[in-house]
This record gives sequence, structure tokens and C-alpha cells, in this order.
Amino acid sequence: MTLQEIALYLGSEEITNTIEITGMNTLKNAVEGEISFLSDSKYEKELSQTKASAVILPASKAYLLPEGVVVLNSDEPYMSVAHLSKYFAKPIQSSEIAPLIGEGTHIYPSAHIENGAKIGTNCTIMSGVYVGSETVIGDDVILYPNVTIYRDCIIGNRVMIHAGTAIGSDGFGYAHTKMGEHVKLYQNGNVIIEDDVEIGANSTVDCAVFGSTIIKQGVKIDNLVQIGHNCIVGEHSILVSQSGLAGSTTLGRNVVMGGQSATAGHLSIAPFTTLAARSGVTKSIVNKGVYSGFPLMEHKLWLKMQAKLAKMLES
Amino acid sequence: MTLQEIALYLGSEEITNTIEITGMNTLKNAVEGEISFLSDSKYEKELSQTKASAVILPASKAYLLPEGVVVLNSDEPYMSVAHLSKYFAKPIQSSEIAPLIGEGTHIYPSAHIENGAKIGTNCTIMSGVYVGSETVIGDDVILYPNVTIYRDCIIGNRVMIHAGTAIGSDGFGYAHTKMGEHVKLYQNGNVIIEDDVEIGANSTVDCAVFGSTIIKQGVKIDNLVQIGHNCIVGEHSILVSQSGLAGSTTLGRNVVMGGQSATAGHLSIAPFTTLAARSGVTKSIVNKGVYSGFPLMEHKLWLKMQAKLAKMLES
Amino acid sequence: MTLQEIALYLGSEEITNTIEITGMNTLKNAVEGEISFLSDSKYEKELSQTKASAVILPASKAYLLPEGVVVLNSDEPYMSVAHLSKYFAKPIQSSEIAPLIGEGTHIYPSAHIENGAKIGTNCTIMSGVYVGSETVIGDDVILYPNVTIYRDCIIGNRVMIHAGTAIGSDGFGYAHTKMGEHVKLYQNGNVIIEDDVEIGANSTVDCAVFGSTIIKQGVKIDNLVQIGHNCIVGEHSILVSQSGLAGSTTLGRNVVMGGQSATAGHLSIAPFTTLAARSGVTKSIVNKGVYSGFPLMEHKLWLKMQAKLAKMLES
Repeated sequence: MTLQEIALYLGSEEITNTIEITGMNTLKNAVEGEISFLSDSKYEKELSQTKASAVILPASKAYLLPEGVVVLNSDEPYMSVAHLSKYFAKPIQSSEIAPLIGEGTHIYPSAHIENGAKIGTNCTIMSGVYVGSETVIGDDVILYPNVTIYRDCIIGNRVMIHAGTAIGSDGFGYAHTKMGEHVKLYQNGNVIIEDDVEIGANSTVDCAVFGSTIIKQGVKIDNLVQIGHNCIVGEHSILVSQSGLAGSTTLGRNVVMGGQSATAGHLSIAPFTTLAARSGVTKSIVNKGVYSGFPLMEHKLWLKMQAKLAKMLES
Repeated sequence: MTLQEIALYLGSEEITNTIEITGMNTLKNAVEGEISFLSDSKYEKELSQTKASAVILPASKAYLLPEGVVVLNSDEPYMSVAHLSKYFAKPIQSSEIAPLIGEGTHIYPSAHIENGAKIGTNCTIMSGVYVGSETVIGDDVILYPNVTIYRDCIIGNRVMIHAGTAIGSDGFGYAHTKMGEHVKLYQNGNVIIEDDVEIGANSTVDCAVFGSTIIKQGVKIDNLVQIGHNCIVGEHSILVSQSGLAGSTTLGRNVVMGGQSATAGHLSIAPFTTLAARSGVTKSIVNKGVYSGFPLMEHKLWLKMQAKLAKMLES
Repeated sequence: MTLQEIALYLGSEEITNTIEITGMNTLKNAVEGEISFLSDSKYEKELSQTKASAVILPASKAYLLPEGVVVLNSDEPYMSVAHLSKYFAKPIQSSEIAPLIGEGTHIYPSAHIENGAKIGTNCTIMSGVYVGSETVIGDDVILYPNVTIYRDCIIGNRVMIHAGTAIGSDGFGYAHTKMGEHVKLYQNGNVIIEDDVEIGANSTVDCAVFGSTIIKQGVKIDNLVQIGHNCIVGEHSILVSQSGLAGSTTLGRNVVMGGQSATAGHLSIAPFTTLAARSGVTKSIVNKGVYSGFPLMEHKLWLKMQAKLAKMLES
């Protein structure tokens, strides 16, 4: 799709530039030939450094771009991106190369491995498992029955994923029209799961909008846990059952999240933080410690609060 | 099963009427040839209008029925209905008509489409998907791997359902004996999902006891969300991950439910209401607004409450 | 593996005893030929009664063992057990005996029944279901599509398990190194589901570390519910959607857990207890009653607390 065609497709001003655009990406990660966008003013400082060939943004911000970057004027860049994302969405299956299966790997008959996938040695891929196109799986991996791995994911060595878990499902992202309708932002990214990760049954790890959702080495995730798009879960973190991370939140290494705890999106949680069961995090945590409650507070304070409430109850 | 046989089966008084009963239904929706019931006094006002051929109810309420409707006397109508529901439960598979598959639709080899199902054009039905008997699916639908759609459901056009989600599983309904045992109310109804709905991974939408659970046009549902039986989710509503609706609750259009929020059953939530993350709704919401907390309150009040609690903590 | 080899494998002091060890077990349940361990001082009282042939424990506690029991000295017995558990972990498939299928049982083509499994009469095993090795299923059971039952489980008669549910997935158990890494405790036990149990869609029931996770007769479990390893759920209990039990908690009979309620691990909940929606239990409950809130209190007190908070808000 050329820039000219994109401008036409988005209904923005006519553009004569016929450079071929190969994909969409963030301002920070876009390379030559890609189109990017400014959907939130907090990313304005990245405009001057972008390598994108074109950027969708309000014309008033165009002066912040490096010379030579083509401007696609839009008053609602996020909506423009949503519309355009459908065009750049990868098909479910895009390869004609038969899957590469390593020595000693056992694949059950009703598992489905898409073309373009690669599976390492000594893996066990059980019945009902789906492995998407271009997904790469390491050695000594066990995928229990009915696990689904979407396309483009990268799974490390000695990873175990229990029954029914979905890796790489679409993140929950939409642009909203003035009429209250939601336009899907097709999810372009993937999930990376590093070595020695174990994930329980019926959990979900969404793929990134752009880039990667990352589960780092040695992380252990329980059953029915939700990891939103573009999250990064630090090394050796532990996420207990029914906990959840909203999109774009980063956990440092060795964070412990208790059962049914959760975080809002776009937060950063300090390494070695412990979140008690049922705690709800709405602000980033800079200092490691033990936290409880919703709104979140230091666990010591939470205990003090409960003591005060108990006293109030007696009065 | 004739009325005479039903009376015998339920152990109620002998009935000589041998009219054939074709199904069970609510007082409001029953048609001629169906049997209905009065299990809650709040439905008494519907007795006089019912088109049912017979009604299970305490004899003392029989005078409220239209002339000609046969009375099956029961002191525990809900228990009688539970027992009888097993008899009228539809089999998992009831059709000998090979599934009808539209042009351009791609069905993966390990998907299972029951007889009597119909799938529209240009759909992708991925590996491990199950489509139940008499279920009808529109055009341009994507069912990701290991999705299960039970029998009799209706899925609109351009619907996307992510990996592992179950649509039409039995609602959670039982009649309870005095000994504390639970008698299953077999679920007779279905799920209707309208056009342009997207549902995330490993979510669950239960079928209705009678009638339909309805997800209206343009609704977006995240991962690990629970929708109970007979719920109605209004147009363009958004349900974030790990939220849940108990049975028979109705959301108006453009309701937003934050992560891990939930509602009790049999409630009505005003259109354009926003429920913050972790909020818990126990009463119907008449006025749109932003609500938080459990018990639920206006978000402004919740912030005030937190400020007061913080002050109490300092004292 | 002989004791001598185990000592070598764990790096404990050399042992000349070459008795063959057949498995690991708890102090209480170990039989001759098995190895056990003391990982928590609260089990010290069981040392004197153990039938284990060898016990991993700190040498300082060895004097509490019956004569003839071999001591494997370890300062970190739980870590030693984790390392050794991998050795004794059962393979996914260990039988050459074709599955035994009862009369009248219908198995869909894409279901996978492992060797060594037994399925009773008149069952329906739907598409995408996995039944593990040595698992035994009773009569008149329905396993809906994409249910996974791991190895060694025992499922009673007239059990219904809805789509996507995982039974027998590994419990969430790790020993932690001083560097913050987690060493998996391979789960040796199973799940027992008694007669007339119904489990909803996309729920998870973990297998026991040793012994059994038990769901007793007539229990009804909703969708997206988590049952941790070694839990016992009493007869006719009801667990509403999105509730969760952490490991080793025991519910008495006829316990009701509301939606999104949860318990910590190693608790005991009195029979006929009702836990309101969203309640969180951190201590055992001795007296039956209705409880709410987190921290948990009698429901009456919780209502009083809410009234006081509402008053505080007005002031």
C-alpha cells in the first residue's frame, strides 16, 4: 500500500508520495518504510527521533518531525490507526513452508501446527494444541492439551503450558467513535515467553499491539491469570490464580502477585514487590515492599486500617 | 409426553387430560402445547395472560389462570420444573442434516461441526472448534482454536471469538431439596450474539434457562469474563477482563465494566453507565454515571470515602 | 532409584543402603519402600509414626524417627523434595493397555483417550476432550468439548464437565532458591470427583502434590472457578463463578461460595457456611453462618460496618 493509497483510504488530504509502506509501528520502533502515529501527547518527545517514513498526527504537531517524514494529517490519529491496522493485520496463516519439528518431539495427532512454525527437540505437543504460523518453540517444551499459541510467538526452552491456556490472543484495544462504537485496533505484535516459564491452566496472555508482550525467564503463572497486551513480567515473578495485569504494565523481577490481585494499565512495579491477595494497584510502585488493599497501601498500614475499622465497628 | 404422564412423573394429582406437551417455557413466552410454572410470586401477574396449555403451581393460585389452562398442583413448583426439565432437555445432537457451510468458509480438519448447524460465507473455523447442532453462524466470522459453541446458538456477522471461549454452556441453576441436594434445571435456551461482537479468550457465556442470553451489536468482551444465563448485554458495551455478570442481569447500551467488576443477578444497569475496576453492583442502576466500590457508590463518593479513610488512618 | 543413588543425586552424605525407592509421599501416607520428608515443623509429630523407608530432614530431627528409617540429612528438605520430585514424576503416558470403553459410550473422533484409561457405560466424550493415562471415568458422564482430564484422575457417575475445563493440572508448588529462582515440585497426586458433580466451563481443578484433590458427591461448580491442589470440597457445596480456593483448603458439606469469593490455603470451612460474593477468607471458620467482606466478618457485622462507613461519609 503506497502512502498515496493510505491517505485516500483514511480520507486525509491528498498525497502524491507513492512510497510503499510495509507496516505500522510505534514512533520509537518504526523503521524506514513504516508508518507511525501520535495518539497521545506524552509521546510527542519521540517525534523528533522517529525513523518512520510517515506519521499520522494533527497537522499542528507536524513541525516536531524530522525533515523528510511525510505527514498524514488526522484530528483523531488513534481512530486513523485503528482503521489502517485492519489493512496491515497479518493473515492467520501466511506461510507455505511446512512446520519444522525437532528430533524427539512428539506431536499428538489432533494437534495443529501451522506452516511456518518451528518446534525444537524433545517437546511434547499434546492433543488439541494449536501452534500458529511463524511461531517458534524451543526445546523440552510441554504444551498440555488444548493450548492455543497464536502466530509469531516465541517460546523458550523448558517452558510448560497447562491445558486450555491461550498465548497471543488479541489485546483489548479499540478506538471509539462519537456514536459510541468501537473500531478494533488489529494487534500487530506477539508474545515472547523466555526459558523455564510455567503457565497454569486456562490463563490468557495477549499479544502486543506493536512489539512484544514478554514473560521473562523463570516466571511462574498459576491458573486463570490474565496478562494484557504489551505487559512485561520480570524474571522469576510469581502470579497466583485469578490475578490480572491490564495492558502495558511492567513488573520488575521477583514480583509476587497474590490470588485475585490486579494492576491497572501502564504501570511499573518495583522488583521484589509483593502484592497481597486481592490487592489492586492503580499507581506505579517505586519502592519494593509488601502492599495490600484497594486502594493499595503498605501492608502494615492496611493492617492498621483494619484495626481502626474494627474499633469503629465496636463503637 | 402427555399431561397425564407428566402428572404421573411429577407425582402430582392424577390428570385425565392426554394432550401432548411439546416443551416448557416461562408464563410470558409459553405457547399452546407448552407447560409453564409459577416459581416466584413476582410473576403472578403473568398468570392471567399465559398461553401455556398447563401450569405447575400451588393449587391456591389456580384461580388466577385463564379458563381452560390445566393446573398441575405443586407445593414446590421450582423443584417440579427441575425434575421435568430433564425430560425436555434437548439431546446434544438431534439432526440428520449435514451441516451447511457457506462459500469461502475455511474449516480446519479437527474442528467438529454437528449436523443441523449452518455456517455462513467467508468464515474461519479453526482447529479444535466445536459448533453444536442447530447453531447458526453468520458471515465473516472467526472462531479461534478450541472455541466451543453449544447447540441452538445464533452468531451474527463479523463476530470474532478468541481461543478457548465457551458459548452456550449450561447456566448455573438448581432446585434445592430439604436434604441440601441440588437438582439440575436443564437449560432449554440459547445464546444470541449479534453482529460485530468480539469476545476474548477463555471467557464463558451461558445459555438461557428459557429464551436467550443476548450479546447485542458491537459489544466487546475481554478475556476470562463470565456472562450468566439470561443476561442481556446492550449494544457497544465493553466488559474488561475477569469481570462477571450473574444471571438475568441486563446492561443498557454502552455500559463499561472495568476489570474484575461484577454484578449480582436480576439487575438492570442504565445505558452509558461506567463501573470502575473491582466494583460490585448489588442493586439496579437507574441513572447513568461512574460508579465504584463494593458496596457500590458514585465514584465521587468513593473518592471522598477513601480520603476519609486515609484521614482516619493518620489519626 | 536406590537410596544410595538418591543421596548422591541430592548431594547429601554418602549412604551405603541400596534399597530401591519406589516413590515419594507424605509422612502420614508413605508406605514401605517410599521416601518422605519433613518440610514444616508442624508435621514433626508424624515422624514417629511414619512407615516411610527413608526421610529427608535436618539431622537434628532424626532422633524422632522410628528405628530403621534411613535419614537423608538436608538443611532445606523442601528444596531436596522439589529436586527429587522431578525424578519420580510420572510420564504423561505410561501404559500399553488400550483404553477400556464401556457399552453405549460415544467418543467423538477428535477426542484423545490415552492408553490405560477406563471409561464407563453410556458416557459422551465430546470433540477435543483429552483423557489421561490411568484415569478412570464412571457411567453416564458427559465431558463437553475441549475438556482436559490429566492422568490418574477418578471421575464418578453422572458427572458433567463443561467446555474447556481442566481437571488435574499441576498444582502451583515451588521451592525457592536464595537467588529467587523457583524449583518445581512435580505433582504426584490426582483429582477425585465423586458422583453427581457438575463443573462449569473453563474452570480448573489442580491435582494434589501427594494424595488427592477431592470434589465430593453432588458438588456444583460454576464457570471460571479455581480449585487449588489438595483441596477437599464437601458434599453438595456450591461454588459460584470466578470463586477460588487456594491449596489444601477443606470445605465442609453444603458450603456456598458466592461469585468472586476466595479462600487462602490450608483452611477449614465449617459445613453449611455461606460466603457472600467477593468475600475473602484468611482464617478457618469453625461456626457455620453467613460471612462477608475482606477481611471476613459475619454478614450482620459487615452490614453494620457499611452503615457506619456511610455515616462517616455524610459527616
